[in-house]
Amino acid sequence: MGARTALINIGLLATPQGLSARGGGAQSEVQLLQDAYLLMADGLVERVGSGSPSRFDLAGHEVIDARGALVTPGLVDAHTHLVFGGWRAHELQLKLAGVPYLDILDKGGGILDTVRQTRKASTGALVDKARQALDGMLALGTTTVEAKSGYGLDLDNEIKQLEAVKQLQETHPVDLVSTLMAAHALPPEYKEDREGFLRLIIDTIIPEVAGRGLAEFCDVFCEQGVFTVTESRRVLEAAARHGLRAKIHADELHAIGGSELAGELGAVSAEHLIAMRDSGIAALKTGGVIACLLPATSFYLHKPYARARDLVTAGVPIALGSDFNPGSCPGYSLQLCMNLASWHYKLSPQEILTAVTLNGAAAIGRARQTGSLEPGKLADAVIWEADSLDFLCYRFGSNLARAVIKKGRLVAGA
Amino acid sequence: MGARTALINIGLLATPQGLSARGGGAQSEVQLLQDAYLLMADGLVERVGSGSPSRFDLAGHEVIDARGALVTPGLVDAHTHLVFGGWRAHELQLKLAGVPYLDILDKGGGILDTVRQTRKASTGALVDKARQALDGMLALGTTTVEAKSGYGLDLDNEIKQLEAVKQLQETHPVDLVSTLMAAHALPPEYKEDREGFLRLIIDTIIPEVAGRGLAEFCDVFCEQGVFTVTESRRVLEAAARHGLRAKIHADELHAIGGSELAGELGAVSAEHLIAMRDSGIAALKTGGVIACLLPATSFYLHKPYARARDLVTAGVPIALGSDFNPGSCPGYSLQLCMNLASWHYKLSPQEILTAVTLNGAAAIGRARQTGSLEPGKLADAVIWEADSLDFLCYRFGSNLARAVIKKGRLVAGA
Repeated sequence: MGARTALINIGLLATPQGLSARGGGAQSEVQLLQDAYLLMADGLVERVGSGSPSRFDLAGHEVIDARGALVTPGLVDAHTHLVFGGWRAHELQLKLAGVPYLDILDKGGGILDTVRQTRKASTGALVDKARQALDGMLALGTTTVEAKSGYGLDLDNEIKQLEAVKQLQETHPVDLVSTLMAAHALPPEYKEDREGFLRLIIDTIIPEVAGRGLAEFCDVFCEQGVFTVTESRRVLEAAARHGLRAKIHADELHAIGGSELAGELGAVSAEHLIAMRDSGIAALKTGGVIACLLPATSFYLHKPYARARDLVTAGVPIALGSDFNPGSCPGYSLQLCMNLASWHYKLSPQEILTAVTLNGAAAIGRARQTGSLEPGKLADAVIWEADSLDFLCYRFGSNLARAVIKKGRLVAGA
Repeated sequence: MGARTALINIGLLATPQGLSARGGGAQSEVQLLQDAYLLMADGLVERVGSGSPSRFDLAGHEVIDARGALVTPGLVDAHTHLVFGGWRAHELQLKLAGVPYLDILDKGGGILDTVRQTRKASTGALVDKARQALDGMLALGTTTVEAKSGYGLDLDNEIKQLEAVKQLQETHPVDLVSTLMAAHALPPEYKEDREGFLRLIIDTIIPEVAGRGLAEFCDVFCEQGVFTVTESRRVLEAAARHGLRAKIHADELHAIGGSELAGELGAVSAEHLIAMRDSGIAALKTGGVIACLLPATSFYLHKPYARARDLVTAGVPIALGSDFNPGSCPGYSLQLCMNLASWHYKLSPQEILTAVTLNGAAAIGRARQTGSLEPGKLADAVIWEADSLDFLCYRFGSNLARAVIKKGRLVAGA
C-alpha cells in the first residue's frame, strides 16, 4: 500500500470539476465546499468530503491540518519558456533610457542574446538554472508547468533544451509538459534564408524531436516580422504529421491571422491574443481552441490586456500562463497573474481559478490527470494563507501559498 | 562583548552613504563595492571593506558566506497603514462589477468598514494581525517600517492602534516608527460636524498621543472631500506645538495645495503626489521636503504614476513606501515597488536603492540610524538572490531576498 494522506479542517475547498476545458458560463462553475476534507492515496485523490472524515477513513493516513484555510488544486502554468541560458537584466537600463527593442536586437541583444547564452550552456547548466525556477514556482503553488524550447533554434540546441525539460521531469516534483518551439525566431545564421530555416524545422527538427519523444506540442510565433500565417501553417501541419499537437503564439502585437489559423487547425491553444479581432474569437470558438492569456506580459511590457471578457462571453475557455522568460516576462508568479486577471481582465475569482487549474491543464493535454480535486486525479493541492478565492485575487505582492501538496506529498511550505 | 558577525564573499555591496535625504544627482550616487565584506558588532556596522577580511578581523565573529551575492542595506518602508482590523477582500467583486467607491462608502464599506473592524478589535488582535504582516515584510527584506494610525478616528481607538505599534516595536525585529493620522477620514459620528472632529483631534487626540510618547509624526489626508488645506494646516500646526513632525498625504487625486502646504510647513515628507503640479514640486524643493512615492497604489488602483523624474530633476529627494493598507493597497512588497519604480517612474536602479533605503530612513527620521551600510549605523542588510541592482529591478513576482540581517543577526532566510 502506498502513501496515504488526509488533509482535514479545510475551511473552503474550491475546485472546478470535469475532464476537459470549460468555456463560457462554465468557466465560473467552481465547486465550493465549506468545512471539507481531502483523502489522498498513492499520489491520487481518493475522495473529497464535507465535515470531518471518520476514524475509519483516516486509518493509515498521515494527517495534515489545514487550520480552516482555503484549499484549491495545484496551479497549472500553461505557458512558459522555462529553459534558457543567462538573463537580460543588463538590458534594463537601455530599455529605461528608451532604446527601442529593435535597436537592442540589431546589436545582438534581446532574444538573440538569450539564444547565444542558451547555445553556449551545457544541458546540466540549463537544468540547474531551470530547477531553481521550478523550486520558486512550486513554492508559489504551481504544480504543473508547460515548457517550450525556442532559444536553441537549431537541431542540437532545441534538443538540448528539451532534454533539459526531460531531466527535470524525471527529477523534480513539478510535472512538466514539453513543447517544441523552434519557430520562435529566425536565427542569425538564417537571416537571409527564411526558407532554409523552415526546411530545417520541417524536415529535420520536427521529425527528430518527435521521433525521440521529446515534445507533445509544437508552437509557432505567428507575428508580423516573425513567422507569417502561411509559414506557421506549414510548420504546424508538419508537426501534426509527426503527432505533435498545435499551439500558436497568436495576435500578440498584430492580428495577422494567428487566431484564425488556430481555429482552422483546431489547435489545442492560442496564446497571448492581445490584439485579437472578433474574427479571431469566432475562430477559436469554432475550432474548440483554448485561449491561453498571459497577463504578466501585458503588465511587464505595459501592453494592453487581452479581451478576456469577450472570450468568456463567446464561450471560449480561458487558461492563464505566466509566460516566464528572460525578456518580456522575467517572473513566474501565477498568483500575480490571478491578481492582474481580476483587475485587468475583469474575470471573477471563480473564472480565474478555472483558468489557472482545469483549463490550464486542458491547454497542455493534462485535464484527465490534474487541474481539479476529484477522485482518481493527481493529488496536487495548495493550502492558502487565505479564506476565500476573493482574498487570493485581492492580496498581492507576497506568496500566499502556505503549503503545497504534489501527488499527495507536502513539497513546499508547512 | 556583544555578538559579532562577518558577512564575507559579497559579490557586490551597494549602499548610499550619508546621514540625510539625497535629492537630484545625489539620489543616484550609490557606493558599489565589488568583492566586499561587512563586519558587524553589537548590532551595528563595524566596517565595510574590499576583498577578504584578515583572520585578525574575523576573530570572534560568526561568519556568514554571501556566496557572491548582492548585498544592500535593509529596506525602509516609509509609508504604511500597518495596523488595522479585517480585510476588504469582500469588496473585490463589487469593484470588479464597477460599483463606484463612493457607493461602497455610502453603504458603510470602504474605509468605514476598516474603521468599524479596527474599533471592534482588541489591541492583542491588532498586534497579532500586524505581526503576520511584519513577518512577511521582513522576509521580503524590509527592516524598518513606518506605521500610521487613522482607522480608529477617536481618542481610544487611535491610541489602541498606536499602542499596538509600540508593542510590536518592543517584540518584533523590524524597527517601527509611529505616525498619528487621526485626520485620515471623517468618522460617521462626526459626519455633520467637521469642526467638532477637528477640535477633537487638535484639543484632545494630539496632546494625549504626544503626551504618552506614542507618535513622532502627524499625518493628514489633504484631499478634495477629505481635509482642506486650511484644516490640514490647523492639524499640523497643533501637532508641531506638541512636538510631532509633519507628514502630508498630498495631491493623491487632486492637487488642492497639499504639496504647497508641505513646503510652507517644512514637512518631513509629502506622500502620494500623483496629481502634483509644478508649484508643488517647487514648494517641496524650497521646504526641504522628501517626496514619498507609493507606486504599488498606482498599480493597484490603475492610477497614473507620480512625476518621479521631474522631482529628481528639481532636486527633491525621493523615498518609496508600500502604502500597505486593506483598501487601496493590500500588499507590502517593496521589491514590487522597486520594479514598478523602474518601469513607471523611470528611475535608475541606483536612484531606486536610495529611495528604499537612505531616503526612506530620512523620511521617517531614521537616517542617522539606518538606510546605509556605514560604520556606526544599524547592521541591517539584505543578501539578495541577485548579482546586480539591475537584476533586483528587472525580476518580479517572487521574493529575491535570500537572507535578511537585522541588527547584525540573521532573522529571515538562510
